[in-house]
Amino acid sequence: MDFRPVFLIIGILLSALAVSMIVPAIVDALAGNPDWQVFAISAGVTLFVGIAMTLTTRSGGLRLSVRQAFVMTTLSWLVLTIFAALPLAFSELNLSYTDAFFEAMSGITTTGSTVITGLDSAPPGILLWRALLQWLGGIGIIVMAIAIFPMLRVGGMQLFRMESSDQSDKAMPRATQIASSIGVIYLVLTVIWAFAYWLAGMSGFDAIAHAMTTIATGGFSTMDGSIGYLDNFGVDVIATLGMIMGGLPFILYLKTVQGNPSALWNDSQVQWFLSIIVGIVLAVTVWLWLSGGHDPIQALRYSAFNVVSIITGTGYATSDYGLWGTFAVPIFFFIMFIGGCAGSTTCGIKIFRFQVLYSAARTQIHQLLQPHGVFIPYYNRRPISDDVIVSVLSFFFVFGLSFALLAIGLGLLGLDFLTAVSSAATAISNVGPALGPIAGPSGTFQSMPDAAKWLLSAGMLLGRLELFTVIVLFTRSFWRG
Amino acid sequence: MDFRPVFLIIGILLSALAVSMIVPAIVDALAGNPDWQVFAISAGVTLFVGIAMTLTTRSGGLRLSVRQAFVMTTLSWLVLTIFAALPLAFSELNLSYTDAFFEAMSGITTTGSTVITGLDSAPPGILLWRALLQWLGGIGIIVMAIAIFPMLRVGGMQLFRMESSDQSDKAMPRATQIASSIGVIYLVLTVIWAFAYWLAGMSGFDAIAHAMTTIATGGFSTMDGSIGYLDNFGVDVIATLGMIMGGLPFILYLKTVQGNPSALWNDSQVQWFLSIIVGIVLAVTVWLWLSGGHDPIQALRYSAFNVVSIITGTGYATSDYGLWGTFAVPIFFFIMFIGGCAGSTTCGIKIFRFQVLYSAARTQIHQLLQPHGVFIPYYNRRPISDDVIVSVLSFFFVFGLSFALLAIGLGLLGLDFLTAVSSAATAISNVGPALGPIAGPSGTFQSMPDAAKWLLSAGMLLGRLELFTVIVLFTRSFWRG
Repeated sequence: MDFRPVFLIIGILLSALAVSMIVPAIVDALAGNPDWQVFAISAGVTLFVGIAMTLTTRSGGLRLSVRQAFVMTTLSWLVLTIFAALPLAFSELNLSYTDAFFEAMSGITTTGSTVITGLDSAPPGILLWRALLQWLGGIGIIVMAIAIFPMLRVGGMQLFRMESSDQSDKAMPRATQIASSIGVIYLVLTVIWAFAYWLAGMSGFDAIAHAMTTIATGGFSTMDGSIGYLDNFGVDVIATLGMIMGGLPFILYLKTVQGNPSALWNDSQVQWFLSIIVGIVLAVTVWLWLSGGHDPIQALRYSAFNVVSIITGTGYATSDYGLWGTFAVPIFFFIMFIGGCAGSTTCGIKIFRFQVLYSAARTQIHQLLQPHGVFIPYYNRRPISDDVIVSVLSFFFVFGLSFALLAIGLGLLGLDFLTAVSSAATAISNVGPALGPIAGPSGTFQSMPDAAKWLLSAGMLLGRLELFTVIVLFTRSFWRG
Repeated sequence: MDFRPVFLIIGILLSALAVSMIVPAIVDALAGNPDWQVFAISAGVTLFVGIAMTLTTRSGGLRLSVRQAFVMTTLSWLVLTIFAALPLAFSELNLSYTDAFFEAMSGITTTGSTVITGLDSAPPGILLWRALLQWLGGIGIIVMAIAIFPMLRVGGMQLFRMESSDQSDKAMPRATQIASSIGVIYLVLTVIWAFAYWLAGMSGFDAIAHAMTTIATGGFSTMDGSIGYLDNFGVDVIATLGMIMGGLPFILYLKTVQGNPSALWNDSQVQWFLSIIVGIVLAVTVWLWLSGGHDPIQALRYSAFNVVSIITGTGYATSDYGLWGTFAVPIFFFIMFIGGCAGSTTCGIKIFRFQVLYSAARTQIHQLLQPHGVFIPYYNRRPISDDVIVSVLSFFFVFGLSFALLAIGLGLLGLDFLTAVSSAATAISNVGPALGPIAGPSGTFQSMPDAAKWLLSAGMLLGRLELFTVIVLFTRSFWRG
C-alpha cells in the first residue's frame, strides 16, 4: 500500500492542529501563565512533524483508494490525539502521559470523560485547549460523516451518500464546498451560543468555552461541578437547546439556509430524535416529581438538561442523576447508547439505525404473518436496500459485542460491575460520565488504573469511527489486498 | 379466526398436564403428606377443563394456519402455567398465587428462578412437581423447535426446516414420528443421569429430580443450597456433562442413534458451543486460580460447573460467583445471553444466531473492502439466505430492546441497577439466578414486589417463545389479517 497520500493528509491535519495550539498559548501569555511556553513548544513540535510529513509525501497526491481511506481515518485520529496530548502532559497540571492521552482522546472524540480535578483553578490555556479539541473533533466528525463514511459504507452510512458520490471526480470538490459551508454554520452556531451564555450571566471566557463544547456535544466544562455549579436557569435552557442543535444533521441546516426551511421538520430522523427526547424527558420528569423533592418545573428542568446531555452524548451534568433512584439509573444507562442523528456531532448507535432496525423488525413481523408476501422496509419514505439493512444490523451486533468485551476487560482490571459496564458504554458511545461513585457525574476517571484508561481510549476511538472503520484494519484480508 | 383447533390442542395438553399431576399426588400420598389432596384436586380441575375444551372444540380438527399456530403457541404456554400453578398455590407452602404463577412459569420455561425458601424441608410432592414442570417444559420446547418454530420462521428458525416441511401433508406425520423418537431419547438420557447421580451418592429421589432438571437445563433443585450443598465432586462432574448434553441439538442425538455417529461432531453449531464453553471456562479458571483461594483443579471444577450452568441457562450453583471478583461478574452477566444450540432445552440468543451474526459481520467487512464484490455468509457449510440473516439480526435487536425495557421496568418497580439488569437478563434468557445479594445464586426472588414477578414471568415467556411468537400477537396487522 502506498502510504504517501495517507501521511500527506495527516501532515496537513497536524499542521492545522499546531496552528490551533497557538490560541491557548496566546491566552495563557495574556493571563501571565507560564504554560504558554508549553503550548508554544508543542505547537512547534507538531508543526515541524506536520510539515515534514507533508513535504516528504506530497509526491503521492491526495487521491485515496478505499483501503487508504480506512487507514487514513483511523490513523489521523490516533496521531492527532498523540500530539494533542502534548500540552496536557507538560502543563502545570502534571498529568502522566496516559492521563494526557485519555483526556485528549476524550476531547477529540467529543466524549467528555475527564481525569482532571481542580478545573476551577486551572490556567485558562488548558481549559481553552480542552474546549478547542472538542470543537475541532466535532466539526471533524461532521465532515467525515458527509465526505468519508458514506464512501466507506460503514454501518449503513451509505444511506447518506450524495447523488454525486459515485463519480469521484465530482464528489471531492462538491464535498469540499459542502464541508466549508457547514463549517461556517458550525462557527455561527457557536458564536450565537457563546453570546447567549454570556447574556445569561457566564463570563466571556466560560461562555466561549461552553459554546464550543455544547455545539460539539462534547461536554468538557471549565468547572469541576460542570454547568450545575452555576445553578442558572437560563444557562440550563440555553445548554439544553444547544445540545439538541448539536445532535441534528448539520447538512439539514445547510439546506435550511439554502432556502428549504422545512428540510429539518420533514426529516424523519429529526422527528424520531425529538420524539424520543420528549418521551424520555417526560417519563423522568414524572418520576422525579412523584418520587419527591422536586416541583414539576424543577423536575422538568433537571430531567430535560440531563437526559438531553446523555442522549446526545454531551456529558454535562446539573445533578448526580445516579442518585435519582432506581428508575433513573437503568434509564440513564440505556439512553447512553442512543445518540443523535447521523451527520451531527453525536456518537452512539444513532437515530437512523434505530429507524432501520425498527423498520426491519416491523417488516419481519409482516413477513411472519404472510410468508409469501413481499414487504419492504422504508427509511425517510424511501425503500431501504438489503445491503443497508444488513450493514445496520451488523453494526448493532458488533456494537453490542464490543461493549460486552470492553466491560469484561474493565472487570478484569478490577472495576466493579456498575463502573465497568457504564464506563464501557460511556466510552463507546462518546458520552462522558459513567454511573456510580467513581466515574459517575460527580466523579472523574482519575483513579482508574492506567490500563483501563488505555482501554477506554480505544473504546472512544472505536465508537467515534463507527467501529468498522477501525476493525477492518485488524483483519487479514485488509492487509492481503 | 377459528379458535377451535387452538383450544383443542390446549385441551389435550391440559389433560396431559392433569395426568402428570397424579405423579406428585402418589408420591405425597406414599410419604403420608396431606398435600396429595391438593395435587389430586388440581389434577381433577385441570382434567375437567382440559376434557371440556377438547370435547367442545374437536369439530374444528387439528390443522392449524400460521395465525392459529401463533395463538396456540403463546396461549398454550400461558394456560398450562396458570393450571400448573394451582398445586403450588394451595400446597402447605402457602404461596400467594403470584408466587405460584412465577414459580410455575419459571418451571415450565426451564428458567429455574425460585421464590421458595425451605426446599430442604419441603414435601416431596412439591419438589417432584417443580422438577416435572421443567422436564415437561424441556421436551415441550424441543418439540416446538423441531415442529413449530421452523414453520413460524421466528428469529431465523427457518434454518432448521426439514426437507419435507413445505408439504404440510407429509410434515405432520413425520414431525410426530421425530418428536416421539426424540421423546424416547430425552427419557433415556434422564434415566442415565438419574442413575449416575444415584451412583455418585444422591438419594434416589434427589437423583431423579435433579436428572430431570439437568437434562431440561432447568435448574430447580431439591435443596436451598442447590447442588453446591452436597459438595460432591462426582455430582458436579455429572451435572456439568448433563447440562452440556441438554444444550446440544436433540435432533443430532437422533441422527447419531440412527447410525450417523459423526452427526454431532460435524455440526458447526456444536463445535462453536463447545469451543465457547472451553474458552470461557478456562478464562474463569485462570482468574479464580490467580486471584487466590483455589488450587487449579478446584478452580476448574467451580468454573466449569457454574459457567456451564449459566451459559446453558440451567441455573444450578455450587458457589456464589457474584463473589468471585470484578472479572467474574460481567462475565457471568454477559454469558447469560449466550444460550445453547437450537433444538435443545436451552434459551437465550443461542449459538446458531451468533454464528449467523458473526458470518454477516465478516461478510460486511469483506464488502467494505471490495464494494463491488459478492460475498455470501455461510452457516454449517451452506449459504445463508438474506431472509434468514435479516430474521436473525432483527431477533438480536428485538432481544436487546426487550431486555432494556424489562430492566427499566424493574428499575421503575424499585430494584437496584445490578438486580434489575441481571434479573431482566436471567428472565429473558431463562437462566435462573440473577446477580447481586437479592436475586443472585445465594438469594431468591421472594422479596421482589408482585409487579416485578409478573413482569419477570412475562419476560420468561417472551424469551422462551423466541420473542416474535409472542410479539406478533400484539400487532394490529395480526388481528386485522
